[in-house]
Amino acid sequence: MKSLVLLLLYSWSAVASAQALPSWNEGDAKARIVAFVQAVTDEKSKDYVPPVERIAAFDNDGTLWSEQPLYFQLVFMLEQVKASASKHPEWKDNPAFKALVAHDQKELMKMSHRPLLALVGVANSGMTVEAYDRTIRDWLAAAQHPKFKRPYTDLVFQPMQELLAYLRDNGFKTFIVSGGSVEFMRPWAEKAYGIPAEQIIGSQQEVEYKVRDGKPVLVRGAKFAFVDDGPGKPVGIYRSIGRRPIAAFGNSDGDLQMLQFTAAGAGRRLMLIVHHDDAAREYAYDRQSHIGKLDKAWDEANAKGWVVVSMKSDWKKIFAFEH
Amino acid sequence: MKSLVLLLLYSWSAVASAQALPSWNEGDAKARIVAFVQAVTDEKSKDYVPPVERIAAFDNDGTLWSEQPLYFQLVFMLEQVKASASKHPEWKDNPAFKALVAHDQKELMKMSHRPLLALVGVANSGMTVEAYDRTIRDWLAAAQHPKFKRPYTDLVFQPMQELLAYLRDNGFKTFIVSGGSVEFMRPWAEKAYGIPAEQIIGSQQEVEYKVRDGKPVLVRGAKFAFVDDGPGKPVGIYRSIGRRPIAAFGNSDGDLQMLQFTAAGAGRRLMLIVHHDDAAREYAYDRQSHIGKLDKAWDEANAKGWVVVSMKSDWKKIFAFEH
Repeated sequence: MKSLVLLLLYSWSAVASAQALPSWNEGDAKARIVAFVQAVTDEKSKDYVPPVERIAAFDNDGTLWSEQPLYFQLVFMLEQVKASASKHPEWKDNPAFKALVAHDQKELMKMSHRPLLALVGVANSGMTVEAYDRTIRDWLAAAQHPKFKRPYTDLVFQPMQELLAYLRDNGFKTFIVSGGSVEFMRPWAEKAYGIPAEQIIGSQQEVEYKVRDGKPVLVRGAKFAFVDDGPGKPVGIYRSIGRRPIAAFGNSDGDLQMLQFTAAGAGRRLMLIVHHDDAAREYAYDRQSHIGKLDKAWDEANAKGWVVVSMKSDWKKIFAFEH
Repeated sequence: MKSLVLLLLYSWSAVASAQALPSWNEGDAKARIVAFVQAVTDEKSKDYVPPVERIAAFDNDGTLWSEQPLYFQLVFMLEQVKASASKHPEWKDNPAFKALVAHDQKELMKMSHRPLLALVGVANSGMTVEAYDRTIRDWLAAAQHPKFKRPYTDLVFQPMQELLAYLRDNGFKTFIVSGGSVEFMRPWAEKAYGIPAEQIIGSQQEVEYKVRDGKPVLVRGAKFAFVDDGPGKPVGIYRSIGRRPIAAFGNSDGDLQMLQFTAAGAGRRLMLIVHHDDAAREYAYDRQSHIGKLDKAWDEANAKGWVVVSMKSDWKKIFAFEH
């Protein structure tokens, strides 16, 4: 009886593996993902990793959803900053503000996260966290992507949704580790990715506890307490998870340190980069792009044998809405 | 057949409830905990809360384990700071350092977390996070509590361990929200409380990503990036969880804002304070204590009808090692 149950379990597991990742073409990328997952979940494998250590870290912009022609959070920021400009005459000489108001995408794309995050920090300071959450939800409900004419939240990558679910089905705990701010992801990431608010690591604006009219509230400050980009990503992971991931997924140089940090741990690891090479179905960009520049991380991926996913040839489908 | 299964399930659930919290005496505190859990988990109740929102936040020092005669982390600090004193001649005029070296417990107990955390921050700066983790593990393995002559990790409260397990059995996600530093809790909290590293919120020292001899490492800085005490606790909860807890557990004025913040949410809530009133089995202290002072939070608990647990009369057993 026991062996029959085991046999059934094994058969089920084999069927489940074959059915996993349906939007991925058969090929090197898919095969290496599946081989990694099988190795770390097989108790008889030398690469076995107990469930509590199966931590997987995913960048968001460009890895789990699109990021062109401008990080979606920046589009939201543009409107937020414009809406509060009359209260901030001091912005008139701020280069980031000038670029935003002038719709100077070229200038904006050259900037790092920092000056832009600083500006949006001031724009929403003084708000309670609930009020800020509402402005994000309202914007997401109304805004449309300029190319796809759809809500931004439709632009999540179906193969990555499948990958997240596949890892969780195999006992992994999945985290987002993004340069964007935590608040911008929380309202939709649970539905889109199955990742709850407490597993989202991102840039953090200061908030302060206050009692207003006898009611405790959290009020947003103007400064960023933490920028979760580049070398900030391993720091964010250490602070919030306290364990080194055994798998990390990114698409740009901002993910390099997270991938290096993941690779440097003992035992079997999976490092994966999503390469945007499909101008027809999404966008094609890498070394020369100001948004999601993939240059040093690509070189390192090639040198170290990390998995590089071609969106064009590895993915049957990019978005769920494709026919 | 279906109704038989349902009947069995209901019977099982009734038995499980009766068996829950075996180290708690029957009484108001236990009854209110069980009533709360039944109300928020019963889908037919007006107080029903879906599992994803069942967030429970626990202070650590004095709530989940003892904190007298000195926060255990302070004892560890004392040795750490002494060991590195020769490298820091500038400490000779530092009041916190002088109190530590003089074993001036009275002076130490008067201090807030901040000057002491600042000192230990410098003491372990420059270390990798792995090296620091080892110093903590080594200390915990060797050190003994002065009163109980046992490892500090034996001094976790068995009724609270049962409460954590009971909440998790009922679909709650349990978090630690402590004024102590995250690193000091991570090595043992999973075994002691069933709470994994990524669900521990605490004070955070700065860490920096560096590449040393081609190997990525995280190196500790001297400053604290975040102090998770008093009004810092709701901020830490917002940053790391992003949801308001529906249940919060503390023992001192440092937990007041976390309890207020929890109480201020909509729907049914559980706020609980552990009162140390058992000098024979543990310690008795409250309004006059420098460690774990319980004064304003006690008044508010009484005014608002929060649960106040008497360790003496509500707990059959405090520690697992008691006969």
